Amino acid sequence: MIKIGIIGAGRIGKVHAKNIAMFVPEMKIKSIADPFMNEETEAFAARYGIEKTTKDANDLLNDPEIEAVLICSSTDTHSKYIIEAAKAGKHIFCEKPVDYDLAKVHEAIETAKHAGVKLQIGFCRRFDHNHRAVYDLVQSGKVGKVNIIKISSRDPEPPPVSYVKVSGGIFYDMMIHDFDMARFLAASEVTEVNAIGSVLVDPAIGEAGDVDTAIVTLKFESGALAVIDNSRKAVYGYDQRVEVFGSEGCAQNENDIPNTAVLSNSEGTTYGTAYKVMWDRYTGAFVAEMQAFADAVVNDKEAPVTGMDGLYPVLMAAAATKSLKEGRPVKISEVE
Amino acid sequence: MIKIGIIGAGRIGKVHAKNIAMFVPEMKIKSIADPFMNEETEAFAARYGIEKTTKDANDLLNDPEIEAVLICSSTDTHSKYIIEAAKAGKHIFCEKPVDYDLAKVHEAIETAKHAGVKLQIGFCRRFDHNHRAVYDLVQSGKVGKVNIIKISSRDPEPPPVSYVKVSGGIFYDMMIHDFDMARFLAASEVTEVNAIGSVLVDPAIGEAGDVDTAIVTLKFESGALAVIDNSRKAVYGYDQRVEVFGSEGCAQNENDIPNTAVLSNSEGTTYGTAYKVMWDRYTGAFVAEMQAFADAVVNDKEAPVTGMDGLYPVLMAAAATKSLKEGRPVKISEVE
Amino acid sequence: MIKIGIIGAGRIGKVHAKNIAMFVPEMKIKSIADPFMNEETEAFAARYGIEKTTKDANDLLNDPEIEAVLICSSTDTHSKYIIEAAKAGKHIFCEKPVDYDLAKVHEAIETAKHAGVKLQIGFCRRFDHNHRAVYDLVQSGKVGKVNIIKISSRDPEPPPVSYVKVSGGIFYDMMIHDFDMARFLAASEVTEVNAIGSVLVDPAIGEAGDVDTAIVTLKFESGALAVIDNSRKAVYGYDQRVEVFGSEGCAQNENDIPNTAVLSNSEGTTYGTAYKVMWDRYTGAFVAEMQAFADAVVNDKEAPVTGMDGLYPVLMAAAATKSLKEGRPVKISEVE
Amino acid sequence: MIKIGIIGAGRIGKVHAKNIAMFVPEMKIKSIADPFMNEETEAFAARYGIEKTTKDANDLLNDPEIEAVLICSSTDTHSKYIIEAAKAGKHIFCEKPVDYDLAKVHEAIETAKHAGVKLQIGFCRRFDHNHRAVYDLVQSGKVGKVNIIKISSRDPEPPPVSYVKVSGGIFYDMMIHDFDMARFLAASEVTEVNAIGSVLVDPAIGEAGDVDTAIVTLKFESGALAVIDNSRKAVYGYDQRVEVFGSEGCAQNENDIPNTAVLSNSEGTTYGTAYKVMWDRYTGAFVAEMQAFADAVVNDKEAPVTGMDGLYPVLMAAAATKSLKEGRPVKISEVE
Repeated sequence: MIKIGIIGAGRIGKVHAKNIAMFVPEMKIKSIADPFMNEETEAFAARYGIEKTTKDANDLLNDPEIEAVLICSSTDTHSKYIIEAAKAGKHIFCEKPVDYDLAKVHEAIETAKHAGVKLQIGFCRRFDHNHRAVYDLVQSGKVGKVNIIKISSRDPEPPPVSYVKVSGGIFYDMMIHDFDMARFLAASEVTEVNAIGSVLVDPAIGEAGDVDTAIVTLKFESGALAVIDNSRKAVYGYDQRVEVFGSEGCAQNENDIPNTAVLSNSEGTTYGTAYKVMWDRYTGAFVAEMQAFADAVVNDKEAPVTGMDGLYPVLMAAAATKSLKEGRPVKISEVE
Repeated sequence: MIKIGIIGAGRIGKVHAKNIAMFVPEMKIKSIADPFMNEETEAFAARYGIEKTTKDANDLLNDPEIEAVLICSSTDTHSKYIIEAAKAGKHIFCEKPVDYDLAKVHEAIETAKHAGVKLQIGFCRRFDHNHRAVYDLVQSGKVGKVNIIKISSRDPEPPPVSYVKVSGGIFYDMMIHDFDMARFLAASEVTEVNAIGSVLVDPAIGEAGDVDTAIVTLKFESGALAVIDNSRKAVYGYDQRVEVFGSEGCAQNENDIPNTAVLSNSEGTTYGTAYKVMWDRYTGAFVAEMQAFADAVVNDKEAPVTGMDGLYPVLMAAAATKSLKEGRPVKISEVE
Repeated sequence: MIKIGIIGAGRIGKVHAKNIAMFVPEMKIKSIADPFMNEETEAFAARYGIEKTTKDANDLLNDPEIEAVLICSSTDTHSKYIIEAAKAGKHIFCEKPVDYDLAKVHEAIETAKHAGVKLQIGFCRRFDHNHRAVYDLVQSGKVGKVNIIKISSRDPEPPPVSYVKVSGGIFYDMMIHDFDMARFLAASEVTEVNAIGSVLVDPAIGEAGDVDTAIVTLKFESGALAVIDNSRKAVYGYDQRVEVFGSEGCAQNENDIPNTAVLSNSEGTTYGTAYKVMWDRYTGAFVAEMQAFADAVVNDKEAPVTGMDGLYPVLMAAAATKSLKEGRPVKISEVE
Repeated sequence: MIKIGIIGAGRIGKVHAKNIAMFVPEMKIKSIADPFMNEETEAFAARYGIEKTTKDANDLLNDPEIEAVLICSSTDTHSKYIIEAAKAGKHIFCEKPVDYDLAKVHEAIETAKHAGVKLQIGFCRRFDHNHRAVYDLVQSGKVGKVNIIKISSRDPEPPPVSYVKVSGGIFYDMMIHDFDMARFLAASEVTEVNAIGSVLVDPAIGEAGDVDTAIVTLKFESGALAVIDNSRKAVYGYDQRVEVFGSEGCAQNENDIPNTAVLSNSEGTTYGTAYKVMWDRYTGAFVAEMQAFADAVVNDKEAPVTGMDGLYPVLMAAAATKSLKEGRPVKISEVE
């Protein structure tokens, strides 16, 4: 059993902490750090057997007993902590995105590589039961050569406009998951991105300089084509579906709903509503992601989502942003 | 192309006439007979290229050009016309049931057999695309040895109580289709029937001496078990499903709906309503049934639903009726 | 009952003839013309009660009894026959596309308009039970304001390369249906088209100057966005699905399969295969299309697919072709 | 937070222990007792923060700090421990069945009642997400008056014949879950049971005096009818479905599968396989069951599955066993 530390005790930090305590027997959380450490978090730590709480991430980074850290702090601190943790010889799990500044992403990746530590990026959807099942079908060869990838990803409600203003916009804070998923499913690199977008959900998002509805097409080195559509607001809840069409078949998943019950009456036959809370929708994915990190660290395997896997979606977001602005397809090579 | 005659120009007679004109190139309808022949039926005949209309079925039976007849008259005349048509050397398609009187059913079957003519009974559901697909899966061996059969069959609305009074009740006028389907799927004969029933839809049905909701279990010679449930009223429309569970798998169908469109909104995801009109639900089955009859006649094959196939469901209905009345399982041998 | 004539007795001409004979009581086919008239077609005409067969379309166009014509001849003759039929005062149903030459399309539309005759274009998918059901949901307002449209359309097998060479390519001969569907569902006009494509199915298609896999995005005047994906080869058969995502919900259909039977075994639960023959897949659509034409003519309603509805998809195909060639989004105004 | 003890550290005892540690913050497990206490169980206890391990259940029963116990020992000890725990004033969760001896069941229930402690029986399926969703639909009134209940319940593999010999047979060890589910969904008591059965899976089960395939029909006081089918072996894994048909609609669930991915290829469209391990299939149900027990104890609510809920399914199993043996319907009043 290896000892770990968690930097950042916000929502996502606590989810990871809980999942490790419950479902990852190979790991023991020794410390959790948060500049806003408070009683609630201390009680949380006690309940889940976390020995130490601190306001200072350095306490973890300097603790020789701690072999791995989870970076769950705000995005602007990610690359800094990756670099410090790597220099301290600790394996790293870092929430996405690594950084919006490509130079910083490269530096973080290089430092981790040089230090010989694992670096896993938190693209949790790769571990979702439905998406993973499609991925497995593709990997099994049952789809044949990949020709077309389709990804729909829609959220129940837009984030606050204040968030949109600082997040980098829909391509950086929302579609970035789908950019990762497209690369993951295609097993090929994107060469060109074309984005179209509209403000159809909330004019305030438009005033903040972003769109709330977007379709992006991708061209891959392999010749495969992909399309992603995003909307900030689906009244029926989270809608997350992928489809991979190939020379031998088509693998796709349906949106996830909490149960299989249906009601037939004079109006038709109705399935239950979709998930409306992200933590419910991706419960299992967060667990599987952490188990995969433990597996990589304990059994010295490659991290299942590498630093480069963290970099590429940022490149794609940059290209999509530029494409939308300039009204033309943008090559990845233009933003590298 | 062989010439045929139709006895009975009611709803079902007209459906068959139309289907033959449109979809059965091997057959040409020469005459249609109905004691209540009227202008509307004459216009119908003209439209579909039927040469002769008559009030007298004997005109058909005595016409040497006519090689086959469809008996679509009232149930009490079925066995009489089978016998007469057989004696006239004509192939016979007869609507179900042949008769409620088992002796008459036997006589009709024997006469047809002795005359060497085809006799096909109108159990149209055997030709339904969904039921046939389950049957084909069973026949292909993919289900293995049949262990359990489940049939649900529910109508949108109860028939008039006046009909219930003369029809022989739910087992004779409604579940008889399911009795046939159970035998068809099991490929084994029923040995014992147990029926339970309730009046839950309309008290007037109970006052008429019948139940409107019934569950019947069946034991087959093969050891297989079956259950059929019927209700006179499903608010969501026709509900017709079968399931065959065996040693190697389970084949089942879903209820039929007119299209695959779904609407996801804040209430859930809703499929369209089921069929509410029997002729819409079984459009294809009526066509396929008549094509099969033509095939049997023209290519001298065994009729796909024989006279004995007409007899057994009547035996099962008799056993179910007795079982419900006496509150105990009834062997088929008790009613033979 | 009005009398009609059919110009062109190829596959589609015969399908329409048969459907009119069987399902369109308001119409009677008097004549069918085909330069390659032969015995088989004459027998066909006899069977379906068509009085006259001829090699010369002028026989129909000059027949004062004929009130409407179906133009089912080769594409290069469409606009010519529309003009001649319109001048002869006959209502017109014309197979798609009207012409690849926009000037000819305009002339045909104008002539029909000036003559005061109905002109309906054969975009049959508008009448498909599944697509129509989604359209009806959108029209009912249950989807709210349309934000995103997604259309997948894949064929079981590529056409012969010889056909690809003369058809104008994938956007003109295949995606044109989807361009029409997108406009139909959006109830708004397209302003900009962006196309990407690859040769992933058959190198010979690439050598013929076309792609076999394509994704096209559309921007509508309303702000709505759309995406269409096409592949020339889906091993599982026809795959035709549409999805309309809006402010109040999402309407979509599933691919059509012949029956609802499923088999559960140790491999999983398997539905039947999709349709592999176009005529089977769209059986009902062809019937409904012709009934709608009869309704428009007999009851003097606007044709449900107008000449302008025939024009716009050609514009979209032109823009998509240009976009693919030039690697940039193309405005419809550039190709008008 | 209340302290609890667990009697029996077999598979089910450990599942409950783990779930409490992870998902039931109101409870803290103080002790676990098992006559075969070993190193593995002690390590398990350490990992999940259980203070004490013991071979003697009396250590728990005599510990005044322990307010509630989970009885997870062998069935023959259930009623004994219920009585002892009740006398010690402890709330009780007891695995099903309470006992096969009806007198002992009554005594246990009475003792708990007299002691004023909660007694919850472990019918976990009531807490399954799919079954609960159907129950909720029924309770909401959306199904109207309940007319027909259908339950299919099939296991992936038969238990060892040695188990069948002591379990009381298929009605006591397997269908008892469905008997409970039928009562739960009907909200009415069963008056009569009719069972039919066959040996179709394994002759050795027949030699042990049991059947492996069974269909049971139920009559309820309300007039509702029900049918349950069981098979010891479904090659496709756990198959657990319920359907409630009523005057206003029909609520049903589909079998549970691990993900929504499908593969369409030339063979058809295939969903993933069903669960083959019971603990995977009912993961959530075990958690929800324990949370409900905690809720009842902590908030002084009635236990959601009472002692009487434990009694009735045993009565139904007794009636089914008698019915199968005697070949006739058996009234519940005959076995009470």
